[in-house]
Amino acid sequence: MSTSSAPESAQLMEAVVSLAKRRGFVFQSSEIYGGLNGFFDYGPLGVELKKNIRDCWWNDMVRRRDDIVGVETSIIMHPKVWEASGHVAGFSDPLVDCKVSKNRYRADQLFFAPVIIDGVTHGYVSALESEKTTEDLQAAAELMKRKKAIQGTLAPVQPRDMTEAKPEEIALIPSPATGNPDLTAPRAFNMMFQTNVGAMTDASSVAYLRPETAQGMFVDFKNVVDTGRVKLPFGIAQTGKSFRNEITPRNFIFRSREFEQMEMEFFIHEDDDWAKWHRYWINWCKDWLLSIGLPESHLSEYDHLKEKLAFYSKGTTDIMFKFPFGVQELWGIAARGNYDLTQHANASGKPQDIFDEATKKKFVPHVIEPAVGLDRIFLAVLASAYAEEQVTDEKGNTETRTVLRLSPRIAPVKVAVLPLLKNKEALVARAQALYKKIKRKYPCFYDEAGAVGRRYRRQDEIGTPWCVTIDFDTIEKEGDTFTLRERDSMAQKRITEADLFALLEEQVY
Amino acid sequence: MSTSSAPESAQLMEAVVSLAKRRGFVFQSSEIYGGLNGFFDYGPLGVELKKNIRDCWWNDMVRRRDDIVGVETSIIMHPKVWEASGHVAGFSDPLVDCKVSKNRYRADQLFFAPVIIDGVTHGYVSALESEKTTEDLQAAAELMKRKKAIQGTLAPVQPRDMTEAKPEEIALIPSPATGNPDLTAPRAFNMMFQTNVGAMTDASSVAYLRPETAQGMFVDFKNVVDTGRVKLPFGIAQTGKSFRNEITPRNFIFRSREFEQMEMEFFIHEDDDWAKWHRYWINWCKDWLLSIGLPESHLSEYDHLKEKLAFYSKGTTDIMFKFPFGVQELWGIAARGNYDLTQHANASGKPQDIFDEATKKKFVPHVIEPAVGLDRIFLAVLASAYAEEQVTDEKGNTETRTVLRLSPRIAPVKVAVLPLLKNKEALVARAQALYKKIKRKYPCFYDEAGAVGRRYRRQDEIGTPWCVTIDFDTIEKEGDTFTLRERDSMAQKRITEADLFALLEEQVY
Repeated sequence: MSTSSAPESAQLMEAVVSLAKRRGFVFQSSEIYGGLNGFFDYGPLGVELKKNIRDCWWNDMVRRRDDIVGVETSIIMHPKVWEASGHVAGFSDPLVDCKVSKNRYRADQLFFAPVIIDGVTHGYVSALESEKTTEDLQAAAELMKRKKAIQGTLAPVQPRDMTEAKPEEIALIPSPATGNPDLTAPRAFNMMFQTNVGAMTDASSVAYLRPETAQGMFVDFKNVVDTGRVKLPFGIAQTGKSFRNEITPRNFIFRSREFEQMEMEFFIHEDDDWAKWHRYWINWCKDWLLSIGLPESHLSEYDHLKEKLAFYSKGTTDIMFKFPFGVQELWGIAARGNYDLTQHANASGKPQDIFDEATKKKFVPHVIEPAVGLDRIFLAVLASAYAEEQVTDEKGNTETRTVLRLSPRIAPVKVAVLPLLKNKEALVARAQALYKKIKRKYPCFYDEAGAVGRRYRRQDEIGTPWCVTIDFDTIEKEGDTFTLRERDSMAQKRITEADLFALLEEQVY
Repeated sequence: MSTSSAPESAQLMEAVVSLAKRRGFVFQSSEIYGGLNGFFDYGPLGVELKKNIRDCWWNDMVRRRDDIVGVETSIIMHPKVWEASGHVAGFSDPLVDCKVSKNRYRADQLFFAPVIIDGVTHGYVSALESEKTTEDLQAAAELMKRKKAIQGTLAPVQPRDMTEAKPEEIALIPSPATGNPDLTAPRAFNMMFQTNVGAMTDASSVAYLRPETAQGMFVDFKNVVDTGRVKLPFGIAQTGKSFRNEITPRNFIFRSREFEQMEMEFFIHEDDDWAKWHRYWINWCKDWLLSIGLPESHLSEYDHLKEKLAFYSKGTTDIMFKFPFGVQELWGIAARGNYDLTQHANASGKPQDIFDEATKKKFVPHVIEPAVGLDRIFLAVLASAYAEEQVTDEKGNTETRTVLRLSPRIAPVKVAVLPLLKNKEALVARAQALYKKIKRKYPCFYDEAGAVGRRYRRQDEIGTPWCVTIDFDTIEKEGDTFTLRERDSMAQKRITEADLFALLEEQVY
């Protein structure tokens, strides 16, 4: 008997981060040196979970399809790629400096409001974006009213962010660091990490760490067409690291400075129905997220407003996910027209077109781009799989079990093999034989330490879907059967080795 | 009937690079912008071959073993990591500038010799390292003798590199670019790519792209020990990108500026027999290379000279491979004592030791490090798998077939399914059904275009181990058998679907 619950928001996030550290899923990068803000390491279980998600995506997106091929392009590309793509000129966040403290803020995350009492503005208050920005600003306004001993009625604050501040307001808005009006006007801060290639360190050697993998597919488009026997519509897919020098990385691995993307560019004929393909890929991505175990209840769609889209964009829809810290973008599916290939054709002088046998005309294909962050999926998986349950054992004792309800497709360990007792040679020998046989094909864990109940709990916490116990029935009765214990229901049944392999073959793909 | 041969050295290298481009294994990065020296992209077949090599390594090194766990650490780490490891101070190549042309040379790749005639030095000649450095220098010396019309006997040149040049010699050695003595003395050039993290661009924000993945395992050592239930001896493994700002990247993907490493740190008790473990890992690495199909004849061992080792090193052995451009290092297996963990303990102030239950003492474990470049293995695989064969068909015509003898473990396509004729519905339907069934589990290619012989050749060239032809016997005779055609022997036999899956299950792991 059990009652299950997921802790809410802040507590859930804390519990997930704590489990991630405790069981070796995610560590802070360079932790012994105090960490490095916005960088993370994946531990022994995390690297397996991440690899499983990546491999599922690759198998479903590339290997099991006829119309998509993969590439792996370099992280450092020719700097002209980023000029043509628009990233050198435009890939920036608005940044505000505090001239005194030298703190820096993203202008769209720093909020302010005038303090209006009986219709008269008496000053400004500011607050960093949070779950309760408006309350913070209201409290600051009330404090100012009290301190300045102003009589009258304080109007409710109307928060705006610093990108909306007029110059005369910037001169009055207090810096969160000093309380005095020490802020600069917002300026564009390019988020690409910059380096130098070769022995020179001057403008001629400047290069960038890619902020997205997508440009690799565009730049290699012609090479793929010339070598790959591909025909429209077709896609080019890639997984790999990207880098963004975020001013304020946050929410654990949700917004970090080094992250892994899984992107695909699906090229279609210029006359093809882009809206049909756009919808096809939105549906594909949602189905895929369900296939690795994300709950449908946590997914929603958000269509970007037409008036906020870039001029070349035909439409962008985000698949949103209910993270513990709010509903946020998980997977963006963008219809980008033929903008990117056209930009590279113009910048490189190399045509990026395809010859249409039917019309005998050349044209530049259009593209639909589903782009997702692997680390975000990882976090969505952990957060929605995490549960704490009150369970009652056969003696009537109640305890809390922590369980990760990971899909067998992506669980780091697929099955744990447990001999009932570690001092019975026959049990251990049978368990070891089974363990070795499974391990050749599936990630598998052998555990003989402690009571079986304790061993089940350890596997529950890391999301192992099944435990197999080798008990006296295995070695004394006919049929060579084991106890199969299922993680979520905790139900147990007898199973043969052949049935176990059939189960794995069906569920792990 | 066939005779097989691999073209020799320069021709082989050219043939491999050409095939790599033509069939979509490897492209130059940013090729439409003229490329970027030292950076490469992997195309549709290359990314599959690379992934297969990486996955074989991961499965054999981590998943199928009980004593090794994986991690994935960030490419950008805290800069103190690289101070502690010694890379900030010492990870450099000696660099020589030509003051006039502004060309830069690696000092150990720029050779010179005095021109000695009848015992008198009349000047200096220089040449860049190549297969025929000495001949080049000799020819240059003879040219000088002729030009200056000096009588007497020219002594054979004695080449040295610029790291061995005395100051008075540097003043006389001609720059290869100008022919005049315009070279600077060698200076240390740090090969780490540098960037800045955060909104500041000053010394406080400097960070590096990792030049090796190994430090990630050392820095996370304690986190792994605390969370992973590991016991000595045990290893921590990682695959991932590393970056080195090579002055002269060369030999295709052998020495590039962005590359992928597969490294493992195997920690042992300080009293354990390091030489035994060192030998264990050398053997393991060689066996593994054989398991993915590298020929034993191309492998050899090189023990680094004791007097050239770093003070903390107990020994380093390289597994060498006969590349088309010479015998070069493929896999280094280093016994590094407890140097790295000790350095990080001292620099971070966090002890990196383990408690010994037996002796009740704490100690810092020692380490054996097998480190290999994935791109190098990729190149070794391509170069040794490549062959051109004279084959005679049933009509007595002779033609050349190009074949990649890739192991089924790593071949990008495991099997191609070919209906004998594309206009026979029953053949196509049976072929499509088989294709779809295989494709769920194994990378598979469907091809109905052209004569079967041509289709075999296309698969030979990309290393597909098996072709399955659906012919009239399949649909008209009992037993539902296909023609299985084996790539290397070109032998054909009848096979059932069940036998085909058994073959794949056995050979692809």
